[in-house]
Amino acid sequence: MATYDVTAFGEGGIRLSVPVGDRIDRVSSFEVGIAGTEANVLAGLSSLGWSTSWISALPDSALGRRVETQLRSYGIDLGGVRRVPAARLGTYYVEYSGAPRPTQVTFDRADTAFTRMQSADVDWERMLDTRVLHLTGLTAALSDSAMEITAEAFNRAKDAGVTVSFDVNYRKNLWSCETAARVLHPFIEDADILFCRYDDARDLYGLHGDSDSVVAQLSEMSNAGTVLMSRSGTGAWAAVDGVVGHTPALPVDIVDRLGAGDGFAAGYLHAWLDGDHDNAVASGCAMAALALAQYGEQVVTTRDELRGLITDPGRSLSR
Amino acid sequence: MATYDVTAFGEGGIRLSVPVGDRIDRVSSFEVGIAGTEANVLAGLSSLGWSTSWISALPDSALGRRVETQLRSYGIDLGGVRRVPAARLGTYYVEYSGAPRPTQVTFDRADTAFTRMQSADVDWERMLDTRVLHLTGLTAALSDSAMEITAEAFNRAKDAGVTVSFDVNYRKNLWSCETAARVLHPFIEDADILFCRYDDARDLYGLHGDSDSVVAQLSEMSNAGTVLMSRSGTGAWAAVDGVVGHTPALPVDIVDRLGAGDGFAAGYLHAWLDGDHDNAVASGCAMAALALAQYGEQVVTTRDELRGLITDPGRSLSR
Amino acid sequence: MATYDVTAFGEGGIRLSVPVGDRIDRVSSFEVGIAGTEANVLAGLSSLGWSTSWISALPDSALGRRVETQLRSYGIDLGGVRRVPAARLGTYYVEYSGAPRPTQVTFDRADTAFTRMQSADVDWERMLDTRVLHLTGLTAALSDSAMEITAEAFNRAKDAGVTVSFDVNYRKNLWSCETAARVLHPFIEDADILFCRYDDARDLYGLHGDSDSVVAQLSEMSNAGTVLMSRSGTGAWAAVDGVVGHTPALPVDIVDRLGAGDGFAAGYLHAWLDGDHDNAVASGCAMAALALAQYGEQVVTTRDELRGLITDPGRSLSR
Amino acid sequence: MATYDVTAFGEGGIRLSVPVGDRIDRVSSFEVGIAGTEANVLAGLSSLGWSTSWISALPDSALGRRVETQLRSYGIDLGGVRRVPAARLGTYYVEYSGAPRPTQVTFDRADTAFTRMQSADVDWERMLDTRVLHLTGLTAALSDSAMEITAEAFNRAKDAGVTVSFDVNYRKNLWSCETAARVLHPFIEDADILFCRYDDARDLYGLHGDSDSVVAQLSEMSNAGTVLMSRSGTGAWAAVDGVVGHTPALPVDIVDRLGAGDGFAAGYLHAWLDGDHDNAVASGCAMAALALAQYGEQVVTTRDELRGLITDPGRSLSR
Amino acid sequence: MATYDVTAFGEGGIRLSVPVGDRIDRVSSFEVGIAGTEANVLAGLSSLGWSTSWISALPDSALGRRVETQLRSYGIDLGGVRRVPAARLGTYYVEYSGAPRPTQVTFDRADTAFTRMQSADVDWERMLDTRVLHLTGLTAALSDSAMEITAEAFNRAKDAGVTVSFDVNYRKNLWSCETAARVLHPFIEDADILFCRYDDARDLYGLHGDSDSVVAQLSEMSNAGTVLMSRSGTGAWAAVDGVVGHTPALPVDIVDRLGAGDGFAAGYLHAWLDGDHDNAVASGCAMAALALAQYGEQVVTTRDELRGLITDPGRSLSR
Amino acid sequence: MATYDVTAFGEGGIRLSVPVGDRIDRVSSFEVGIAGTEANVLAGLSSLGWSTSWISALPDSALGRRVETQLRSYGIDLGGVRRVPAARLGTYYVEYSGAPRPTQVTFDRADTAFTRMQSADVDWERMLDTRVLHLTGLTAALSDSAMEITAEAFNRAKDAGVTVSFDVNYRKNLWSCETAARVLHPFIEDADILFCRYDDARDLYGLHGDSDSVVAQLSEMSNAGTVLMSRSGTGAWAAVDGVVGHTPALPVDIVDRLGAGDGFAAGYLHAWLDGDHDNAVASGCAMAALALAQYGEQVVTTRDELRGLITDPGRSLSR
Repeated sequence: MATYDVTAFGEGGIRLSVPVGDRIDRVSSFEVGIAGTEANVLAGLSSLGWSTSWISALPDSALGRRVETQLRSYGIDLGGVRRVPAARLGTYYVEYSGAPRPTQVTFDRADTAFTRMQSADVDWERMLDTRVLHLTGLTAALSDSAMEITAEAFNRAKDAGVTVSFDVNYRKNLWSCETAARVLHPFIEDADILFCRYDDARDLYGLHGDSDSVVAQLSEMSNAGTVLMSRSGTGAWAAVDGVVGHTPALPVDIVDRLGAGDGFAAGYLHAWLDGDHDNAVASGCAMAALALAQYGEQVVTTRDELRGLITDPGRSLSR
Repeated sequence: MATYDVTAFGEGGIRLSVPVGDRIDRVSSFEVGIAGTEANVLAGLSSLGWSTSWISALPDSALGRRVETQLRSYGIDLGGVRRVPAARLGTYYVEYSGAPRPTQVTFDRADTAFTRMQSADVDWERMLDTRVLHLTGLTAALSDSAMEITAEAFNRAKDAGVTVSFDVNYRKNLWSCETAARVLHPFIEDADILFCRYDDARDLYGLHGDSDSVVAQLSEMSNAGTVLMSRSGTGAWAAVDGVVGHTPALPVDIVDRLGAGDGFAAGYLHAWLDGDHDNAVASGCAMAALALAQYGEQVVTTRDELRGLITDPGRSLSR
Repeated sequence: MATYDVTAFGEGGIRLSVPVGDRIDRVSSFEVGIAGTEANVLAGLSSLGWSTSWISALPDSALGRRVETQLRSYGIDLGGVRRVPAARLGTYYVEYSGAPRPTQVTFDRADTAFTRMQSADVDWERMLDTRVLHLTGLTAALSDSAMEITAEAFNRAKDAGVTVSFDVNYRKNLWSCETAARVLHPFIEDADILFCRYDDARDLYGLHGDSDSVVAQLSEMSNAGTVLMSRSGTGAWAAVDGVVGHTPALPVDIVDRLGAGDGFAAGYLHAWLDGDHDNAVASGCAMAALALAQYGEQVVTTRDELRGLITDPGRSLSR
Repeated sequence: MATYDVTAFGEGGIRLSVPVGDRIDRVSSFEVGIAGTEANVLAGLSSLGWSTSWISALPDSALGRRVETQLRSYGIDLGGVRRVPAARLGTYYVEYSGAPRPTQVTFDRADTAFTRMQSADVDWERMLDTRVLHLTGLTAALSDSAMEITAEAFNRAKDAGVTVSFDVNYRKNLWSCETAARVLHPFIEDADILFCRYDDARDLYGLHGDSDSVVAQLSEMSNAGTVLMSRSGTGAWAAVDGVVGHTPALPVDIVDRLGAGDGFAAGYLHAWLDGDHDNAVASGCAMAALALAQYGEQVVTTRDELRGLITDPGRSLSR
Repeated sequence: MATYDVTAFGEGGIRLSVPVGDRIDRVSSFEVGIAGTEANVLAGLSSLGWSTSWISALPDSALGRRVETQLRSYGIDLGGVRRVPAARLGTYYVEYSGAPRPTQVTFDRADTAFTRMQSADVDWERMLDTRVLHLTGLTAALSDSAMEITAEAFNRAKDAGVTVSFDVNYRKNLWSCETAARVLHPFIEDADILFCRYDDARDLYGLHGDSDSVVAQLSEMSNAGTVLMSRSGTGAWAAVDGVVGHTPALPVDIVDRLGAGDGFAAGYLHAWLDGDHDNAVASGCAMAALALAQYGEQVVTTRDELRGLITDPGRSLSR
Repeated sequence: MATYDVTAFGEGGIRLSVPVGDRIDRVSSFEVGIAGTEANVLAGLSSLGWSTSWISALPDSALGRRVETQLRSYGIDLGGVRRVPAARLGTYYVEYSGAPRPTQVTFDRADTAFTRMQSADVDWERMLDTRVLHLTGLTAALSDSAMEITAEAFNRAKDAGVTVSFDVNYRKNLWSCETAARVLHPFIEDADILFCRYDDARDLYGLHGDSDSVVAQLSEMSNAGTVLMSRSGTGAWAAVDGVVGHTPALPVDIVDRLGAGDGFAAGYLHAWLDGDHDNAVASGCAMAALALAQYGEQVVTTRDELRGLITDPGRSLSR
């Protein structure tokens, strides 16, 4: 039996943000958090009691330890994290904003410890000692070697019978639609569980039509048993063995717009691991809503709370 | 003539809260406030110029003084507060939240200075030297002796011709509906002014129907000249000598969901003391709105401001 | 060719505020900002790359330097600011609030360095070395000498062929409608660019009707080539050589209700200086929206961001 | 028997400060406290359980209420405070600093509600219903009417047999040594309890020599039974019926340099009221040390803590 | 070979503190940390790379998770922590202070999840799967069952050949010197590594004389191969197989007076585990100094930093 | 006559710091400041009223504008700053600490906009339109092109008759002593005003002996009319035309250990520009002391304050 329930490979970084209404041009203090789409998924799963493992590389410095400290606090196993002396850490800056400005994310992630990681640096045995391996398209965009390790991990996991979860997670600031569409196609085709935003399906592959139609088209592109498609503010669509269903988003007072997609993936995988297929998409939607209602990209919750949101939503005060 | 306009008996405690978007699981600092449903009513009345007195017990410690310091700042007379060496203070934790999670209140109030207070510890002369005595069903739930003192105060006040104001204020975390319904019935029956939430009328006594009907049923259960029934977000219903009226809630940008009911009671009693029966329910609704629009459970306002909200509502900027 | 693109004359002061939900009655710390309607306009223009100059007087003290430091940070030239020893600085207090209370602004601006400034204290050569001179009705209300300097500046600029921009900016806490209407009439009549809120047109001159009608009436009162009329929440109306047009306000999550009118003027003047008459009102509306979405009264932005809001509005996340 | 133990007359104001290391030139938030030398003395006495009353005038505004709220929280009776509409509040700015810069205090206190107060505005009956009346030379410097009321209060108290405590408290920013020396001489001569700093004795009256000699000279100038002279960092000298004694200052880690003199007066008067003449100067020194070790000008303590500092000083950890 | 390097049994709690200069009487926010003498030792050891395990009980609540989250962030294994529904968490309040007041620690730790823990609740196999078991006299004072488990753990470890480290850690607020002396005697006698403060040796067992003499007397009382005695501000004395040596304390700018003793134990055990007996006491002194120079009770450091403090002390700036 | 009094060439960056007692490993918010040794000197001079200009390159981004905003607030002319799209900004991290740990500075400054700047990017006319050009050895260490521009500026200024001020400012984290000694030698030789720390003289050139001797040796190495040598905590030594003098450091309560050397240079150059050679070193020492007593690396002061520190030092309270 596998040591870990879910393992993921990806970059972690530090996130410096200013609250809604402030500008980096005049900032006097940055809020500090951490980020990393795959690690975010693991954090959510850990808070729900699953055993998780993260494969990555960080600088051997106080900033690198800042990332480790927080990930460890969620309960993620960091035995697969390589510590690289004198290396850079991915840093990104967030200027939260309400209308009329968008929340603005700026990356300073060139030449980091992670982007220099090579296949030989990976503890492959640890990577595959898991029920589910979670990978994303974001990582494939970071560097050639990051892409190669992602592909190697994908293929090794398939060979080893590990369930592979793949989130398309396209970022226009990192690469073009054309390149991303080409590079990510094999992952989409062969993942066991596929996550893809409606907008990414449209931008990368030109899928169009209503959501039911787009998720069905995605399902045809992929051999995944389950295809999950989220659409901001309206909820999620699932195509399970070709059958399409829709689960509406929960009403939410947005506190932090980042991390909802990762919360969705964590919520879905949580129910999947439990074998609770009936509530899996609702679990994803509830975790996405929690992500939006909390500061930071990692969802902090409990099984009891998540269950309550699914079975008894809408309470505004509990005392 | 009585020394005090309004006197109340109840527990006071310290309130440790985290803002919307944060979790106690990871809190690095707690906002500190104080709480106590009856003291909240007195604070609102004091800020409107009335002479108020609080009968209670607190530990003789820095935490106990923390409660006293703030209550004194509102102008409440604390001569009736017993200071108990080496005793505990009721503490409660609040995790504010917007949708999808409810704001979560957790109590750590076992075995406090107040719950151990006995009838012999009460300065009864001071308790009755007042125009109005305000009591609540929450206090009756805290301990046997708290319930006995509440009942004794109720009866002594009735005997002495002091007007008795009673707020049902049911808390499901403290006792069952059945017990509460039975214990609180005599207070509901004989109060002079009765406050009861719509939900409490439904949960304790099975009253149902529209709000007009429920307040009328409450009015039949009670000998109170005035029965006030609030319903979250929609306003208040009054049954005055059996005649039912409705006053809509003011539009409000909610900052702190706690304390609205106490604000309502303070606003109503304020107008009642002034003999301004026409504006009494509107005054309650305005104070409830102020409570929701301010941090903390005690309403900070002035007579001028309150009057402005009733006569000239809806302004967004005054300069 | 003029040294400055836009010059303005007016008072600057310090602004002490408490956030939504707090009360000055219990404040433990004040947020510190600066204010001054004309300086606000210059700050917005400076962030868009224009050369600006401010004519004013400040106390020669740490508080006076607090104002200078921040204005200088925007890039405004302060060579025309007189430093007065042992003088007072205009101070104002803001209690932000959502419904049901209005945001409350209180002034402590009697007898300041600025209100004592005389015509002889002004560096007139510097004042007129500009493409546009921006004046407001607020300044005319501060003291007799402030009014006289405003009038002298207005007339000198007209004589010198400098374009005069005038914002009516009536403040009921400073003077009566009748006095203001009488004193401000000549400015309204002869300004080249006139800004006037709908409410001011109604309150000072009894103009009524729908917005199209009121802006047309304003246009008839004035010889200004362009009359701009803003109406809170609904956008702006322009009468250009008598032709009326409407530009709707952008949707905005309000963070700070103060400074929108100044942002509007800055945005309009920015496009005017660029000769971009087609986008001038939209530019004003976008700057007004930015002002509302940021803390503080001065708009912090860039040409790129402003252009994006006009050509590609409505994005909620950029990454 | 008198209603109050100690009554004082003086101005109260708001204090805006920046911490050590920051400059007002660049301040982004002010810490808010309150100040008033006489009120500070009352606050210290109230925390030790004495009944105190403050005679003053404040604007009827949120800022005025800010002062009242805090003074009320200490337990000071504010029935003798006049609320003046549309008046100014004394404001002062503090830039804390360690070496090499001095802590810098700047006043903006012209034309306040208090400085306009007239004898007819005073509730004289309340003023004299006290065991001790505490007055200071600072108040005599604020305005002609403040000086006249101080003198009238002094004389009425003497006539009524109320013990008069007087603190010279010279402020060079308010008036010259010559004027102060002349105006304050009668108070020094006839006070029952006299407080005077070593530096004030030297600057106003040219007294010189070592501390023993200066306090003896002060004692000769005065009919006061007790003359207390404090000298920064070295402690206090008392001349009781002509007998001189010295009490060394307690070692202290200075947190806030302001308020030590008022703490000293409160500590001395506390012991005097208790009739504990042996510990009176030590009590003053301990309260002065507490003032320096706490933020804010009012000493927060208890009788137990004060006693502990006198009988068992020097502990660094209590657990 | 044992799974863990160091295992400890003890209570964990939440710590609410106010900074130097503030008083709980007026606190508006509490800094939140966690505490627990044995867990503190483990945290220090984890940051130096050792594998650690904590045996304890916590409430199954957000507050309980607050403790777990932080301990997990240090890398401590929490598999041996029992989660008890509806239980209390030990809470303690700290008022930091410089002279003249002591830092004041107040406990609210009655009837917690930990004090109710029984021997049958302990995972004994996990407890003994370790190279070193660390126990303290503080835990023995918390409840009868806590004392019994401590004794059982001590004896089982001795039987199993696990090295037992024992820290006397007497707290006068928890029990009398007489009781503590009697109860703790067997632990002192049979520990393998014994930590004892000079003051505790004096207060519990009447040992007196200079430090060399007292540590020698302690060494005679005990069969421990190594006896470590720390004395606040002056350093540590070791008696190793009867040979006494002294290591002076490092100069330190104290930021937080709590946790130095736990830091000392962690530093000593770190070197002991490394077999580096020459630097063991210096390592303890350096960790104690780090504890005093950082906020919070757990030392955050690295092997490199610790080594640098021992080999190249006294640098004030590294750039 | 030159447009600027002092011009400097160097890099600017953002500074993220945690206060004494905190660790980056666990930081939840960074204080944000800016840094740049030459810009620091200009900021100090600007606050004393001199006209200053900075030649540099920054990214055209919000972070780049953060640096500009603050430098502009001091009054430094930024017309010579090149804005580079899509470039990095030098970032550095500071962990303040008291004993036993050093304050730790970590740089992330590879491949920034500044290090890529070429001679052709410099506005040479602007660079030389100044009375004094200030350059440092730190800049020469940043990149080959930075060194080349420094050398070209040095030579052009000498040719143009501009006074050249040079600060050795060796940083061991950037290059070796050997390289630095060789590269910096020509600057040391030919500067008009030379600043060099005692430690740098020792480490780079092996100068030893007491301070009088070392400054004399430096003076022999250099053709500079004035050589200034500072030594941490003890003050400064000057060799003016070969005559050596010593000025002791002012006593200072250190708040921020960074920026003292730049403050010293600013203070010296201030007096030099004024022609006040008698007070020049004392002015440098006073500015260095102010730098240590304030947060941030740029000294905020006024001519009055600086004069007061020189003529009337040692005051602890001014009111």
